[in-house]
Amino acid sequence: MSNKKNKRIYLDHSAATPVDRRVLLAMQKTTKEVFGNPSSIHKEGVLAKREVESARKEIAEIIGAQRDELIFPSGGTEANNLAIFGVIPHWDIGCPNVVVSSIEHPSVLECVRELEKHGVEVTFLPVGSDGIVSVKDVAEAIKENTVLVSIMYANNEIGTIQPIAEIAKVIRRSKSKSLFHTDACQATNYLDMNVLRLGVDLMTFNASKIYGPKGVGALYVKRGIKLSPIIFGGGQEKGMRSGTENTAGIRGFAEAMKIAEKMKEKESARLMKLRDFFIKEVLKKIPNAVLNGDPTQRLPNNINFSFLDLDGEEIVIGLDARGIAVSTGSACANISVDGKVSHVLLAIGNNQNFARGGVRFTLGRETTKEDIERIIKELSLVVKNLYK
Amino acid sequence: MSNKKNKRIYLDHSAATPVDRRVLLAMQKTTKEVFGNPSSIHKEGVLAKREVESARKEIAEIIGAQRDELIFPSGGTEANNLAIFGVIPHWDIGCPNVVVSSIEHPSVLECVRELEKHGVEVTFLPVGSDGIVSVKDVAEAIKENTVLVSIMYANNEIGTIQPIAEIAKVIRRSKSKSLFHTDACQATNYLDMNVLRLGVDLMTFNASKIYGPKGVGALYVKRGIKLSPIIFGGGQEKGMRSGTENTAGIRGFAEAMKIAEKMKEKESARLMKLRDFFIKEVLKKIPNAVLNGDPTQRLPNNINFSFLDLDGEEIVIGLDARGIAVSTGSACANISVDGKVSHVLLAIGNNQNFARGGVRFTLGRETTKEDIERIIKELSLVVKNLYK
Repeated sequence: MSNKKNKRIYLDHSAATPVDRRVLLAMQKTTKEVFGNPSSIHKEGVLAKREVESARKEIAEIIGAQRDELIFPSGGTEANNLAIFGVIPHWDIGCPNVVVSSIEHPSVLECVRELEKHGVEVTFLPVGSDGIVSVKDVAEAIKENTVLVSIMYANNEIGTIQPIAEIAKVIRRSKSKSLFHTDACQATNYLDMNVLRLGVDLMTFNASKIYGPKGVGALYVKRGIKLSPIIFGGGQEKGMRSGTENTAGIRGFAEAMKIAEKMKEKESARLMKLRDFFIKEVLKKIPNAVLNGDPTQRLPNNINFSFLDLDGEEIVIGLDARGIAVSTGSACANISVDGKVSHVLLAIGNNQNFARGGVRFTLGRETTKEDIERIIKELSLVVKNLYK
Repeated sequence: MSNKKNKRIYLDHSAATPVDRRVLLAMQKTTKEVFGNPSSIHKEGVLAKREVESARKEIAEIIGAQRDELIFPSGGTEANNLAIFGVIPHWDIGCPNVVVSSIEHPSVLECVRELEKHGVEVTFLPVGSDGIVSVKDVAEAIKENTVLVSIMYANNEIGTIQPIAEIAKVIRRSKSKSLFHTDACQATNYLDMNVLRLGVDLMTFNASKIYGPKGVGALYVKRGIKLSPIIFGGGQEKGMRSGTENTAGIRGFAEAMKIAEKMKEKESARLMKLRDFFIKEVLKKIPNAVLNGDPTQRLPNNINFSFLDLDGEEIVIGLDARGIAVSTGSACANISVDGKVSHVLLAIGNNQNFARGGVRFTLGRETTKEDIERIIKELSLVVKNLYK
């Protein structure tokens, strides 16, 4: 019983998820039985090719895509890089324009900053204090020379869900021929992933956020779109991503996708209840706590609070010492650039005093009501101590 | 006994190696116990960071490098891309020059072809009929505006070993400030990997060629060299390679490196004997067979024959049907560009009739003398049938 009381509680599922036991077993099987190079023409190669292609088909079916519309980069970051850099060289426009939200993941923001250095005009859309991009703002931002709009499906820090299907519609109706990319890494466990219903042209996935392995992701690329590669070589993945395919990783990714899809509805409902209970309790019990992001149009597993004048990192460290793993904004924030202030919290209008205090709690499959109750208790104590 | 006689013989270890049982066990342990994001500051993150850093230290020690001189891309292809594209933006030279051999892997050749499109001058060095780059040719090719020389340690098709240490010396002595990169993916199992003795500035490794996992590699980057990244985002790997680190893959890579280092001497001697026996027997028993590449200055596990007027692919298919996995030149050859003719075999002066006939046999840890004897028998039959 004391063991149960002292167990670690991990509430940082937006940074990394443990690998599902079934995923790990599938990967072990593939590693042992299918070690050939998928580009080889002998039996071992053909088996490896078949493994990659069956995984590709399984994932494609889940998202309503064709098999040839999916390619496998090494993760979400590379997929976002490929989507953004891959689109640009195919546009014969003097100075192309790219539209992104100001709360994108660093793997999108750093890419468009790089594009800016090379003469591409980038429009950074604001978000409301609720952390949501306005569809009207998108419509107004699109110009004739807009070649790409990239807006994330759900934010990695505050979990707010963007109106992807509506944004897709205004892009179609615009005068531009702009493509629409969305980073769906954080959304995959909980939201509708059907690319046809969403109306996107490019969509990013990451296995390590859905109880799959690290080091593998996917980019949906709608038929007819030809991307320029960012990694050159043997011409794998129809020339869009060279390098030997990570067969076991891709198999694990497909297993993780199938499990996530099966659990989606029930798990979303379960976590939403826990999330809302968590939010209600904190607002009731901890003074100076402010919820970041819309209270309901957010991922079922995301809670993000700022605490006036407190440093989020100190709260994370305090909770860690008490056996609870949470995080400040993001594991991927480029500390050297942004310091301790979250670009997302600044974008939703938090002043510096609040923006430093962001603490993110992201629930997962093992999270229980008892965990939440214990966390609220410990969080109250940590915050109280810091205010002293 | 009939089972033994009919077992598959896999002789395509330059395309892919099976994962060592000990490597797989280490990866399973890491996957289960260390699932955090190495960038997170809580205990789970710190454990993951520690795992990545201990693996980095172990690999660095093997190659005589410092821990901070190694970064982990997703494989050999990405490492080669990073080395080549990463060097260029840091040179303030109107038209920089890059020197490569004409028998590099596609992941080097396609990169420099891309650079050519952007105004970089590329010098392609010839090789002798023995498949070896002349040190004198390198010395003569280097100009004041040469910023990078990239010559592979051992060729992936014909296994010829390049005089890396001597080339490093002539580069140092030249008037240029050129950096020296070598792709050591095929050499790692068998040759000296000490970066100080070799005198290289950048060196590429690939776990999947040394009985480790697919989807992870390393680039040695000598202290003081700052590469421009090709993948942007959260700033991992000192900003040179963004994206969550593939913790389990990196652990597996380190285990594979340690095992390879331990086995290097004995295994090289054992395979060299098998290789020389193989070569002698084929030359004796199969007419019109020509060994490609130097007979001794080649990897202990590499045998590459051309058969006059025969199509290598047909031989591969014939042997495959008889339970033996071998390959034409390379699993990574860009078929759409080069057709069936190997750029390596053309470079060593084979005419088209021979260049189509290249068949590569690459031995591995499980290869036995009995395997070689059976292969020679089957190869004779397949070749005889094709000539009919």
